[in-house]
Amino acid sequence: MLGPGDDAAIIRAPDGRVVVSTDLLLEGRHFRRDWSTGYDVGRKAAAQNLADVAAMGATPTSLVVGLGLPADLPLSWLDALTDGFADECATVGASVAGGDVTRCDLVVIGVTAMGDLGGRAPVLRSGARPGHVVAVAGRLGYAAAGWALLEAGVPVDDGPLLEAVAGHRAPCPPYAMGPVAAELGASAMLDVSDGLLQDLGHVAEASGVRVELDPEAFPVAEPVAAAAKELGADPLEWVLAGGEDHALAAVFPPDVRLPAGWHVVGRVAEGEGVLVYGREIGHRGWDHFG
Amino acid sequence: MLGPGDDAAIIRAPDGRVVVSTDLLLEGRHFRRDWSTGYDVGRKAAAQNLADVAAMGATPTSLVVGLGLPADLPLSWLDALTDGFADECATVGASVAGGDVTRCDLVVIGVTAMGDLGGRAPVLRSGARPGHVVAVAGRLGYAAAGWALLEAGVPVDDGPLLEAVAGHRAPCPPYAMGPVAAELGASAMLDVSDGLLQDLGHVAEASGVRVELDPEAFPVAEPVAAAAKELGADPLEWVLAGGEDHALAAVFPPDVRLPAGWHVVGRVAEGEGVLVYGREIGHRGWDHFG
Repeated sequence: MLGPGDDAAIIRAPDGRVVVSTDLLLEGRHFRRDWSTGYDVGRKAAAQNLADVAAMGATPTSLVVGLGLPADLPLSWLDALTDGFADECATVGASVAGGDVTRCDLVVIGVTAMGDLGGRAPVLRSGARPGHVVAVAGRLGYAAAGWALLEAGVPVDDGPLLEAVAGHRAPCPPYAMGPVAAELGASAMLDVSDGLLQDLGHVAEASGVRVELDPEAFPVAEPVAAAAKELGADPLEWVLAGGEDHALAAVFPPDVRLPAGWHVVGRVAEGEGVLVYGREIGHRGWDHFG
Repeated sequence: MLGPGDDAAIIRAPDGRVVVSTDLLLEGRHFRRDWSTGYDVGRKAAAQNLADVAAMGATPTSLVVGLGLPADLPLSWLDALTDGFADECATVGASVAGGDVTRCDLVVIGVTAMGDLGGRAPVLRSGARPGHVVAVAGRLGYAAAGWALLEAGVPVDDGPLLEAVAGHRAPCPPYAMGPVAAELGASAMLDVSDGLLQDLGHVAEASGVRVELDPEAFPVAEPVAAAAKELGADPLEWVLAGGEDHALAAVFPPDVRLPAGWHVVGRVAEGEGVLVYGREIGHRGWDHFG
């Protein structure tokens, strides 16, 4: 409604509530300028916050950005960053409403995303109940596979390996599936930022339940499989424990008919923690997979 | 409505619009840990964003915070920072709704404040018209005077000098005056973050008018006068050009009766720029004062 240029921006909130997510991204820790372009970093910074909003069942509407920029940063890098923000927002109908720029020795990006629930109840992490099913939408394992390829210094020019690397540079979250899941009555949802096992551990803890996953139920995408073959790695490790793809993981009552795009990968039981085929993996992330 | 712990927070937006302001504060640039406590930094970081929201005529409701923290930061500093955020929010009835923490070599604070317009039209920078009056509410010159005392190494133990230094460490914005000015029909408003002359230059530019100030009309507060005496400085320079006090400067139609707390300091004329007693100071900040 009012973009950059005044003391503050004004965004629409027709629902009367606003969903808000914020993140800080730091050069060296969350991205490297030699591995990612400014455009990729902009897309990734936007995506991880827009995905948080979608994971509540909301439609992202706006982004505000605080930038810390080194004096010697090429202006072209900043232009590309800005384009990345705008393009990622455009994929979901959102826009950049405002921002703030200051000098810093490294690139620092503070992103706050907002979204509208459209009258729906928000989908929290705490609503999973025994008997419910666990489903995922979006990519799993791409970012971890791409990162492993970059770290190993594998030459990646095209084909599925490049697709994995592209997945590391900028994710492709299934934003629209957030509101869809909310409409379908999802009982819990989050976006997969730290790895599916770790993130579902948050659902298990918040809901007071155990999440059981069937490793056979996970489709392994070609880029992930190709990277695993190249590096002699286990692709399922990336799928289950890799982060930063910002897939959505949701829990639904058993009678819900899931539309295309959602894959059932497990179920909710009494107990605690996350189990894969009866083996406890633990709340706090990837242990190992037998 | 929903605080930290899920993918995103949910805040009330009864008006159907949300005012949003974001800033990035960096250690060394915006604050020094040897000059300010964690508590002061938290109050200041919150205040500068809450003031931006108030300057639109809105009531601040919520804050989300992204923190980059060094591994060796004392936990007590973080506790104090958090208390500072909470206390500053409490002065205006707002609350901290969520956040994000990551490791960083220096303390980085990304703050996003949100507020509600309560059905009022937002007060922009562009509505000032010739014949309108210019008024200020809140402190002017404290932060600049306090900074000058600290930089000069003047021992400051109590009394008005300490009050000036406290004004540098954490401002005291007149939040409630933002919605009051909006209700009274203010035609332009902003918070004084970079210095009154520079900030009113933004109003002059956005409104296509000239702002004329009467230097005799500015009350010089005792802490500012005392610091000027101590350092042999001109207190009016701090009042007119000092930033970071986050006073509110507003423009009103001439028939508006201003309540206590607002001081008329000038008027709007045809033309451009900011003039003090007929002398052009320029849009972009303090030049010097004759």
